[in-house]
Amino acid sequence: MTSEEQRRASGARSLQSITGGTGTAVVESLKDIAPDLADWIISFSYGDVLSRPGLDLRSRQFATISALTALGNAAPQLKVHIHGALNVGCTPTEIVEVMLQMTVFAGFPAAINAINLARDVFNERGVAVGA
Amino acid sequence: MTSEEQRRASGARSLQSITGGTGTAVVESLKDIAPDLADWIISFSYGDVLSRPGLDLRSRQFATISALTALGNAAPQLKVHIHGALNVGCTPTEIVEVMLQMTVFAGFPAAINAINLARDVFNERGVAVGA
Amino acid sequence: MTSEEQRRASGARSLQSITGGTGTAVVESLKDIAPDLADWIISFSYGDVLSRPGLDLRSRQFATISALTALGNAAPQLKVHIHGALNVGCTPTEIVEVMLQMTVFAGFPAAINAINLARDVFNERGVAVGA
Amino acid sequence: MTSEEQRRASGARSLQSITGGTGTAVVESLKDIAPDLADWIISFSYGDVLSRPGLDLRSRQFATISALTALGNAAPQLKVHIHGALNVGCTPTEIVEVMLQMTVFAGFPAAINAINLARDVFNERGVAVGA
Amino acid sequence: MTSEEQRRASGARSLQSITGGTGTAVVESLKDIAPDLADWIISFSYGDVLSRPGLDLRSRQFATISALTALGNAAPQLKVHIHGALNVGCTPTEIVEVMLQMTVFAGFPAAINAINLARDVFNERGVAVGA
Amino acid sequence: MTSEEQRRASGARSLQSITGGTGTAVVESLKDIAPDLADWIISFSYGDVLSRPGLDLRSRQFATISALTALGNAAPQLKVHIHGALNVGCTPTEIVEVMLQMTVFAGFPAAINAINLARDVFNERGVAVGA
Repeated sequence: MTSEEQRRASGARSLQSITGGTGTAVVESLKDIAPDLADWIISFSYGDVLSRPGLDLRSRQFATISALTALGNAAPQLKVHIHGALNVGCTPTEIVEVMLQMTVFAGFPAAINAINLARDVFNERGVAVGA
Repeated sequence: MTSEEQRRASGARSLQSITGGTGTAVVESLKDIAPDLADWIISFSYGDVLSRPGLDLRSRQFATISALTALGNAAPQLKVHIHGALNVGCTPTEIVEVMLQMTVFAGFPAAINAINLARDVFNERGVAVGA
Repeated sequence: MTSEEQRRASGARSLQSITGGTGTAVVESLKDIAPDLADWIISFSYGDVLSRPGLDLRSRQFATISALTALGNAAPQLKVHIHGALNVGCTPTEIVEVMLQMTVFAGFPAAINAINLARDVFNERGVAVGA
Repeated sequence: MTSEEQRRASGARSLQSITGGTGTAVVESLKDIAPDLADWIISFSYGDVLSRPGLDLRSRQFATISALTALGNAAPQLKVHIHGALNVGCTPTEIVEVMLQMTVFAGFPAAINAINLARDVFNERGVAVGA
Repeated sequence: MTSEEQRRASGARSLQSITGGTGTAVVESLKDIAPDLADWIISFSYGDVLSRPGLDLRSRQFATISALTALGNAAPQLKVHIHGALNVGCTPTEIVEVMLQMTVFAGFPAAINAINLARDVFNERGVAVGA
Repeated sequence: MTSEEQRRASGARSLQSITGGTGTAVVESLKDIAPDLADWIISFSYGDVLSRPGLDLRSRQFATISALTALGNAAPQLKVHIHGALNVGCTPTEIVEVMLQMTVFAGFPAAINAINLARDVFNERGVAVGA
């Protein structure tokens, strides 16, 4: 495989293992209007970055959820990555803990809005905090 | 101990174990002008929030570093928490990985500025990525 | 009362006097998934912080509305605090003035989006600017 | 004309030529609750600022779209200015290019959310990237 | 006076009464490179907006300080408006209260960084919290 | 050349033509602690994104300056891209126009802070607005 094929292959593998159907749907939806953005998500975001060996996938999802909770302007992506966190073995309790921690670093509104998104995802998947 | 004493005791313990001298210095420096803020940092931030059992301290520091890198407007606190991450057993490599991941979620300037703060902290402590 | 009971009592009182039903509903809604966050809202946000004597409640609501207008990523909380401002005696005109002022400090989109939320709350309550 | 009349006249002209119906509708909608904000949009935003001769209208729309994409908290205004960009001769491809560029400076979620708004506007107007 | 002269006159008066020397220095410093921005600060920010009768100057300064504390990316302007708040009769205690309140709405780093700027201004002017 | 070599070659070319020495220095400075970030800046940011044919380099620099002005938390990168804008043929006047426009979309503090960075770069290079 060429280096470019390797980036795409490892990205596609990471995208599938982290986000499952939700991330793939985002990538597909972009192909009409911004096919190169769809490619970059696979090759750069999931290939170059999220496939890197230096940090485990659970920690990576904690980092992503934390950042998107704090920024507070990326609800669709936060939902994808709550799914992603569950997919790589984070528990609902741990996900909520990361969001609760954001009360300290980004304030209560950011945490509350993220918690409400988490509830939706947990309900959709039939999982629960403390269960 | 009363509940209030417990909050303060667990907060002081977490503050010490996570931030060591750097966090204590921040708390002390606030006592002249905002002593209640100094108290809240101990009782609320480190007592109620960062002492919670549902998530390990390493993951908590990854979450904090990720959020402060993404927000990009809290350099002094990011430095404190890079120290904090090292103090609870995160490696320089893992810290840099979290920051690199923010290229995807918050853009390159946020990641570059955080990496430059990390370099300062690593140099100060004589640690290095990959070492 | 213990200090902890005092925090909760004064927080519950502030929550009720500031937000009335809207804030209580938020707190209740969080109890399924993040009961400690519900507690913190009462004990920390409304108990430790918003009950403090050093600033009157009207000024506190101006400050909250200003911050949430400027940040622009917390519409549900901004609505709660527009209600809160009206509850503690701020007039619709004053609330709109704070939002207009944000054109200078955070730009026109932030101000326009906040004004549109204010219109919804004013209509809901049958109050009006200049009335 | 007085200087004030000139500001209003040039602002009304710019508002019409840039945003067409979409901007005028925003201005009209504000007249009930914040008539001075409606005036400022015409006299200041479009009169003093966006009518200035030092930069062409296409470049101005690229700048606006870039900023609103990066901030990520002003979806209604971003839609107005995607319309505006098309109205002053930017192509769908160029608009998407500006948004793609924001992956570098503000991260992928910001770019993806903007692209999804652009698709809505392009569909509404029957235009397409690359067409 | 024409309407334009009135805007400038009331803006200059507000600028002087709110910011005293600090705001005037900012305006002067911009005249080399962006003289129209200097004009807009007087005519629009201080003339059209901050001179409006619907809200008292103390409340306006609380709103400004709150927003700039929450945004966390405008330290020079926050310093100008801490001076401004003192100039229009806000006490150091009230200014600190607004900043403390931002722990709830924007997180602890935002509040801590603002408090540290307030200390500098208070020291410069020889005023103190609680004095 | 392989596709990977092409990305790097076109990225290195764009980096050089846009940022000249300033961007190259940033890339070099990252090699000690985050060599892959240095690579991504070349291959992804400048190779995949900023080399794209769908938008001219001047418009790209207006977009970057606009976004970084609005975000307000990336001063070092804004300086690099003010240099970059001058390098690709934007005039000092046009750069200032983009920043002035941000008063509307991100508020006056964002615009003022960017203008002050622009003055530094213009002085460094001996260029001036209107010259």
